[in-house]
Amino acid sequence: MDAKVRLYVDQPLGQGQAVALGADQAHYLFSVMRLAKGAAVALFNGRDGEWRAEVAEAGKRGGVLVCDRQTRALLMPPDLWLLFAPIKKARTDFIVEKAVEMGARRILPVQTRHTNSERIRQDRLQAHAVEAAEQCGGTYVPEVADLVALERLLAGWPEGRRILWCDESLVGAAQGLAGAEPGPWAILIGPEGGFSEGEKAKLRAMPAVLPVSLGPRILRADTAAVAALALWQAALGDWR
Amino acid sequence: MDAKVRLYVDQPLGQGQAVALGADQAHYLFSVMRLAKGAAVALFNGRDGEWRAEVAEAGKRGGVLVCDRQTRALLMPPDLWLLFAPIKKARTDFIVEKAVEMGARRILPVQTRHTNSERIRQDRLQAHAVEAAEQCGGTYVPEVADLVALERLLAGWPEGRRILWCDESLVGAAQGLAGAEPGPWAILIGPEGGFSEGEKAKLRAMPAVLPVSLGPRILRADTAAVAALALWQAALGDWR
Repeated sequence: MDAKVRLYVDQPLGQGQAVALGADQAHYLFSVMRLAKGAAVALFNGRDGEWRAEVAEAGKRGGVLVCDRQTRALLMPPDLWLLFAPIKKARTDFIVEKAVEMGARRILPVQTRHTNSERIRQDRLQAHAVEAAEQCGGTYVPEVADLVALERLLAGWPEGRRILWCDESLVGAAQGLAGAEPGPWAILIGPEGGFSEGEKAKLRAMPAVLPVSLGPRILRADTAAVAALALWQAALGDWR
Repeated sequence: MDAKVRLYVDQPLGQGQAVALGADQAHYLFSVMRLAKGAAVALFNGRDGEWRAEVAEAGKRGGVLVCDRQTRALLMPPDLWLLFAPIKKARTDFIVEKAVEMGARRILPVQTRHTNSERIRQDRLQAHAVEAAEQCGGTYVPEVADLVALERLLAGWPEGRRILWCDESLVGAAQGLAGAEPGPWAILIGPEGGFSEGEKAKLRAMPAVLPVSLGPRILRADTAAVAALALWQAALGDWR
């Protein structure tokens, strides 16, 4: 019997490996989804691929699953970070969901001069990333970092990681991804109010930065994130 | 003074042209946005570009704006249709919004074997397209067609219009857009349950169809729509 439920667990997976469930997961599997002893569940932990497991014990406050075979190898996304300025809650959730589906490896909310949001709930966004991975069949969950000031992030920018800078002010002036080399990259999506002049000057001065235009219409940040991820994945990532 | 409000009107625009407002638009401009006589509004109608207009008469049940100068030329999107199977309401709204931002010229909801939704509210989706165009600075509003059966649409498919067929079953087998020619195109996004075997056979047999893979993860329909529009616009559309 094939598994109808996919679950992320933060425990090792392998042949014969027992996986203990917490109260929340037990409630979900046995009360909400009404799985009984012997039912199949698909498990992944972001490291060991996807495993078919069977319910060995089902209780109200916990339970045990036992892995019987690997159903998918681990699919690591390319070494691509997504940097974006948080916007309204629903659209920020959306960006995290889309970044997982589109295969970003790390998600970094950044505070820019014109960012509306002063804080984020990192734990909530991380849970959202787990849910998106469960949904999209992924075997990897990108880490959602804490909010960091763009200026600080750029000041300590890792050598060798290029930045695909998407900005609506770049129409016509942008070079595009043709000729760009694979390797560690980050996509940077601007806030809805645009980057400040100081931020733009800083970005223009960094040799790691490749400016790119996303067409003649103004895109919302969530649209721009998906569009830039698609262009990068097709040119340099695992869609090739 | 620059206009802070952008409004779609279904009336001719031009130098000195008077534009009569209906009750809804008058309410929005004069009660919600509190514009008074002399205030500037940006108008577009999908044909004549964007015009700066001034409030000449402001009433409770109507009003008159007078155009004083064109602020943007008409930007027609490329001849690209987006065909998609409607999903849950919020995500269908989202696909329409994204199609407008990304520059599709026509939006066609299609009924497939595995489409969950039997009907759509065409008028509501069209209003959503207008709102997205007002937001994104576009000067064109794509038409949202009524729901049509995919089979019927394909049976009468216009000669010369190619179809970019996005399907999760195509990983590895897809050719991609390299070498494709510009011209009239349509993007076809599958339903969340996938296409039926009959639909796939029909699509494979059509010379107009170019299959494309959107990577190794399963994308939701709304993600797939934005990703496919981005790839097409960058390769063949007005993002080049």
